Amino acid sequence: MFDVLAFDADDTLWANEHLYIMKRERFIELLRPYADPDLIGKTLDETEITNLRYYGYGIKSFALSMVETAVSLTAGRVSGEAIQAILQFGKEMREHPVQLFAGVTAVLAEVGQTHTLMLITKGDLFEQESKIARSGIADCFRHIEVVSEKNAETYDSLLHNYGIAPSRFLMVGNSLRSDILPVVEIGGTAVYIPYATTWAHEHVSSHTDTTGYFELEQINQLPSLLKRLT
Amino acid sequence: MFDVLAFDADDTLWANEHLYIMKRERFIELLRPYADPDLIGKTLDETEITNLRYYGYGIKSFALSMVETAVSLTAGRVSGEAIQAILQFGKEMREHPVQLFAGVTAVLAEVGQTHTLMLITKGDLFEQESKIARSGIADCFRHIEVVSEKNAETYDSLLHNYGIAPSRFLMVGNSLRSDILPVVEIGGTAVYIPYATTWAHEHVSSHTDTTGYFELEQINQLPSLLKRLT
Repeated sequence: MFDVLAFDADDTLWANEHLYIMKRERFIELLRPYADPDLIGKTLDETEITNLRYYGYGIKSFALSMVETAVSLTAGRVSGEAIQAILQFGKEMREHPVQLFAGVTAVLAEVGQTHTLMLITKGDLFEQESKIARSGIADCFRHIEVVSEKNAETYDSLLHNYGIAPSRFLMVGNSLRSDILPVVEIGGTAVYIPYATTWAHEHVSSHTDTTGYFELEQINQLPSLLKRLT
Repeated sequence: MFDVLAFDADDTLWANEHLYIMKRERFIELLRPYADPDLIGKTLDETEITNLRYYGYGIKSFALSMVETAVSLTAGRVSGEAIQAILQFGKEMREHPVQLFAGVTAVLAEVGQTHTLMLITKGDLFEQESKIARSGIADCFRHIEVVSEKNAETYDSLLHNYGIAPSRFLMVGNSLRSDILPVVEIGGTAVYIPYATTWAHEHVSSHTDTTGYFELEQINQLPSLLKRLT
């Protein structure tokens, strides 16, 4: 029924967002002498969103937004050591081992026997390539694409480049906004596997119509869904 | 003689490095109250090189390295305003208009009549896409590829993906290390157009054998070189 199965990476194949959440907590701790914890978290979130247009996604953007928040929230009184600690947060995130979700390797091996597999991930090229290389599963994928935004136009252009008909394309991911809705929009099939802590910016506020995509609790259920569909 | 002409972007089609040089000067001015100007420049350069493995290329990496250098060179005494100024340097670079070199538009229009044109640029995906979009020449290129490193393996894999024979491929760029030598290595043809201030890291220290590639002073000379070759 499908020629190509495409997978999102962050929080679909491996854990990612928890790193941001952990460092956000450490950042709040770090600035606690200067400001109210809720205000620190809120200001960081807002700074990140505002800076998307300058920086895009990824660890470097997050680090720069933390530095900016630290300076602005303390009216410039933040210590050099605190700035150094923030830079260190970023480097630690960058070096953190890639932790595959349970079952990912087995599922890719199984569905890869009957389908061409593709990885489509959004974010910082340098960081994504490093994670893919360290994940140990790069060889499972015929094509790997790192894109800066995942909208209908992105998928349209990828499918066109690879000569894939939307009706033969299935995308698996954890973000309704980036992995599911744009794929449904261009006539593809999407499998939504929610991840507990999907970032506020990725939420789709008013989505009620669940027709057009499938929802699974975990990636282990993908092979049986594919069998059911064919 | 060639099916595909590929172009590097930064400092081949538009000016880029001068932005880094200008902000490096401003950074040195900013830290002058704390340290010797030569030491500031040298420390920033070293920090950038050391951080390549964490950050890769681009403005965000440069901004983070400036912040790190400011904290370390002042033993943490750098002011919050100086940190804010550094962040602002990064945002200004990000918003700077893309300035095409003289003749680029006419040359692309001319050689594009007889060849498929491709853009192959190294660096931060988000920043490169933004510059390409703002350059006004994106439509000249059939394919646009942003890569994190330009070595023989990169070119090999790109040519393989697009089904281009190396002997039918010509690359134009300003970096011997990234645009010229790896293309020659895989059996392609390369046209070197040096740019006055190519970054220290891009220099090839001991290159003496100039066979295997052509050297031009400016991109305007490309059409006549092509005519000479065919």
